[in-house]
Amino acid sequence: MLTKSEVKYIQSLSQKKERDENGVFLVEGTKISLELMRTVPHQIVMVYAVKAFYEAYESLFSPDKVKVVSEDELFKISQLQTPQQVVVVVKQEKYSCAPENCKGWILALDAIRDPGNMGTILRNADWFGIEHVLCSNDCVDIYNPKVVQASMGSVLRVRFSYTDLSSFLKQYKHTVVAATLDGIPMQSYQFPGEGVLLIGNEGKGIREELLPSLSQKITIPAFGQAESLNAGVASGIVLWELRRKG
Amino acid sequence: MLTKSEVKYIQSLSQKKERDENGVFLVEGTKISLELMRTVPHQIVMVYAVKAFYEAYESLFSPDKVKVVSEDELFKISQLQTPQQVVVVVKQEKYSCAPENCKGWILALDAIRDPGNMGTILRNADWFGIEHVLCSNDCVDIYNPKVVQASMGSVLRVRFSYTDLSSFLKQYKHTVVAATLDGIPMQSYQFPGEGVLLIGNEGKGIREELLPSLSQKITIPAFGQAESLNAGVASGIVLWELRRKG
Repeated sequence: MLTKSEVKYIQSLSQKKERDENGVFLVEGTKISLELMRTVPHQIVMVYAVKAFYEAYESLFSPDKVKVVSEDELFKISQLQTPQQVVVVVKQEKYSCAPENCKGWILALDAIRDPGNMGTILRNADWFGIEHVLCSNDCVDIYNPKVVQASMGSVLRVRFSYTDLSSFLKQYKHTVVAATLDGIPMQSYQFPGEGVLLIGNEGKGIREELLPSLSQKITIPAFGQAESLNAGVASGIVLWELRRKG
Repeated sequence: MLTKSEVKYIQSLSQKKERDENGVFLVEGTKISLELMRTVPHQIVMVYAVKAFYEAYESLFSPDKVKVVSEDELFKISQLQTPQQVVVVVKQEKYSCAPENCKGWILALDAIRDPGNMGTILRNADWFGIEHVLCSNDCVDIYNPKVVQASMGSVLRVRFSYTDLSSFLKQYKHTVVAATLDGIPMQSYQFPGEGVLLIGNEGKGIREELLPSLSQKITIPAFGQAESLNAGVASGIVLWELRRKG
């Protein structure tokens, strides 16, 4: 049985301010929760599970980090329209990426606002083994429940941080390549061994103040009439282009 | 001023049954509505626009196909949480694609259920100039308002139809290549000049009864730890692979 203040606390984690102050975020869904318990048990603060789920996976739970809840309680603490047996409060991870010592390929995101797109981009970065995802400060919060959901667990594996992208790029010494609608055809571009791949905002593209920092603009060739591609799709296609040549 | 029955009729078009019986669908948003008026005026049944929008683009409207509505009325007939100045009732287009005479590259979708994914896939097909999108009968309806929205206008340009995919593939004489998690690395595959590219359901992949019809399974190579890619992203990456080699 959950106390009123416990319910209120978990509900409050739908807000970024509360998540950050408490250094935690929410994960929902049976598959991702099982993955959490198996791979990063040290990050788990508390698991709230319905009886059926608890009994099915009892051996995986640390006894001091699980509470069995009723369906009604689950419904109250869940962010989903259809709660999925379990809600987990998880510790946030902190990563850093300084311009002078962040190695490998960095996927930089300029003002990605849609949670679904952000989650999809994290999943792409995870699939293509990107070393770090660097978000401008006005990107949607990675710990937003919709981002966590759309990332299908990748939020737990990908290294990421938020920064003033403009300052970062000014200090960064390697190549900065941006996916835009007015670049060279990307298949003619030779990607170096490391650098920043920059993806712009869904509607506005890359903000003007970043343009002087670009080494090269590249474009996914069009064969039809669509004006643009979805930001999640575009990032996936460019990452494939980068990896297939690397 | 709209009559009660007019409001009720437009609201009813959120349901597939009503859309199909009336042979129409709804389009919302200023940009896509302007595109409609410019490129396919013959498909427009009626435009419901607020005064500001009507006055800004008066010359584009056919006088017998526009009604100026109040903000309150727009709110009632809109499917969006934040209505965008205009709702258009548009005639559905009917295309066909028979196994013996559907030419070029066909993008076949097996049980794509998420409206956002379907819209994204249509946008990809439009960008990469795919000749036809063939949907299994249990795919989400292309005229679902969320699909229309996510397709960013591509629903107006892409040729598509619904069919029993299993029967279609049995009768189809050219190559059928499927994107799966257990195929050959796609970069080693030589795409022929035409064929079917098959994309499976978001969670379950390609249904078993279609497997005997496949000529080849291909896979997007993984470089990290994600279990899979989003169906919209995967279709975009494979379409780029197809076009860059074609």
